[in-house]
Amino acid sequence: MTFPQLRHPIIQAPLAGGPSTPELAAAVSNAGGLGFVAAGYLAPSALREQIERARELTSEPFAVNLFYLTEVAVDQGDLDAYVRQLRSDPAAEHLGDPRFEDDGFAEKLKLVIELHVPIVSFTFGCPPKDVFDRLHETGIAVWVTVTELDEAEAAERAGADALVVQGVEAGGHRGTFTDADGAGELSTLSLLQLLRRRTGLPLVAAGGIADGAGVAAVLAAGAEAAQLGTAFMLTPEAATAAAHRRALAGQGQTALTRAFTGRRGRGIVNRFMREHDAEAPAAYPHVHHVTSPVRRAARERGDADSINLWAGQTHALAQERGAGELVAQLAEEASQALQSAQQRLGSRL
Amino acid sequence: MTFPQLRHPIIQAPLAGGPSTPELAAAVSNAGGLGFVAAGYLAPSALREQIERARELTSEPFAVNLFYLTEVAVDQGDLDAYVRQLRSDPAAEHLGDPRFEDDGFAEKLKLVIELHVPIVSFTFGCPPKDVFDRLHETGIAVWVTVTELDEAEAAERAGADALVVQGVEAGGHRGTFTDADGAGELSTLSLLQLLRRRTGLPLVAAGGIADGAGVAAVLAAGAEAAQLGTAFMLTPEAATAAAHRRALAGQGQTALTRAFTGRRGRGIVNRFMREHDAEAPAAYPHVHHVTSPVRRAARERGDADSINLWAGQTHALAQERGAGELVAQLAEEASQALQSAQQRLGSRL
Repeated sequence: MTFPQLRHPIIQAPLAGGPSTPELAAAVSNAGGLGFVAAGYLAPSALREQIERARELTSEPFAVNLFYLTEVAVDQGDLDAYVRQLRSDPAAEHLGDPRFEDDGFAEKLKLVIELHVPIVSFTFGCPPKDVFDRLHETGIAVWVTVTELDEAEAAERAGADALVVQGVEAGGHRGTFTDADGAGELSTLSLLQLLRRRTGLPLVAAGGIADGAGVAAVLAAGAEAAQLGTAFMLTPEAATAAAHRRALAGQGQTALTRAFTGRRGRGIVNRFMREHDAEAPAAYPHVHHVTSPVRRAARERGDADSINLWAGQTHALAQERGAGELVAQLAEEASQALQSAQQRLGSRL
Repeated sequence: MTFPQLRHPIIQAPLAGGPSTPELAAAVSNAGGLGFVAAGYLAPSALREQIERARELTSEPFAVNLFYLTEVAVDQGDLDAYVRQLRSDPAAEHLGDPRFEDDGFAEKLKLVIELHVPIVSFTFGCPPKDVFDRLHETGIAVWVTVTELDEAEAAERAGADALVVQGVEAGGHRGTFTDADGAGELSTLSLLQLLRRRTGLPLVAAGGIADGAGVAAVLAAGAEAAQLGTAFMLTPEAATAAAHRRALAGQGQTALTRAFTGRRGRGIVNRFMREHDAEAPAAYPHVHHVTSPVRRAARERGDADSINLWAGQTHALAQERGAGELVAQLAEEASQALQSAQQRLGSRL
């Protein structure tokens, strides 16, 4: 299973939970990068529609990201206490039921196999070997999101064809296999240096990459390609909510929090995060299901203070321009950045 | 004030508190990089000796780093409670007195001016304009360590000639102007991208850089030079304690903590950090003075569990080899990394 031959080593991150669209994935792939359809939170039928729609829009390959969730013990007392606290939140008219669901893994896996998606990536864990075998038998390349050396080793042992190396700068959920405090807090640059000499697998660098200089930097650090999420969230092809777009364009500081979903994710600091971060337990996707109606309603009324404003550390550099143009711009800037770095290094010799 | 013409854009970080030696600074400068003498914690007379000794060992320029500390209000109750807790620590035979001291700033400033050190950098804050004026009048370039956009703007306004951009990956103390929770937690790569388009000042990238690929990455991201600290701590020229060396060569995870000094610093997680992190107040250098005898004694008896094992996220890549050879190796690797990144980008066009 070889790494795809892309015109530009630029990959759009999946962006589950709203911003991801087939139009975005297709625009990135048509421009010579690699687009991603985010399966997370979609009903399997909606995932099928999105894949089919993206296929109408591009003849280039694109990838699909699946959540791989395993149920772990949740502290029921902490979870109950958090739900009680959320009930008194001014934005919490309706709360959902806390529960574990595996995001329809088996059905979605069957679907990507049926539809012969060329690349499937996993987030939140590494599936067992038989999942890799089923995908590989169909000729599907399997990528696994990792945030630590141990995770990378496990993914390689299981048969991963590439590793998506997610640094702590990344917006949205941490892709850690387990959501322990302090786990997976290595930066993109740290991870690339540490992993590059431990594995021969292609590394896709994700987290904090916002411009062509950032793309150039991760390539120089040994990545095969750069994966950008937040950078695509202001494109017209993305379905990012209006209030979220406004926040991304601002200068707000980001932080990791479990307040919205029960799993650490990076977002722009807002009222909801400040008020609930300290009490939020590690209970994903239980808390996600509890706050989901609150966040949906807040998005609809444009209340940025009650939404999970997922954003990477460099969100202020996101641009409002077509995703295809953005890919071309990033590639051009990256080339210039490498040339100028070469000169800076060489001129001193 | 122009950026120094270095044969290699590789700078040794100051490493106050033990590892820094005139031999290390001179070896780095002699190899075509830029060495640093760390003034922090030294008596002014010892600083004079170190500068003079480094001058005997090299005719190349080297720099001196000064702490710039301003006294801020400390929560006395929290500090007292922490000192009480430390009294029951098994390693705490003797505790020092909690107190503010400005690390002899005025005297050390006078000294670097008298000795015409070509470059002086500041950490922990940005001195008032008259300090810049005095240094500039003597022809001394002034660099300021920054971890956030606001700090960078303040330093530029004050007259900085270059910014040392310290990402959250860096070992040792965070260089934040104020030690607020969550402040200055941007990665090196994030900071470079955010700052590059806001300032024309040369940026020196620090934090998590461990090999030539890392050097290449920060140059590609727009840094004028890469500053490495932990990477030099296993060199024979460094005076790193034996127990600290052993920990650096291991795989231990790092974390930020105030446990040792009352200011967030990144070190390898050990017993002392685990037991005291939660209670440690923001009170620097008060807590530093309290724990200083504990740490000194622990270093002497080789007790790695009671030392501040300052280390950047990529400490496992530190090499036990001569500092000069290391500089040459980093430059060579960086050149290869840029070439291979160029090919990876270009081969897809």
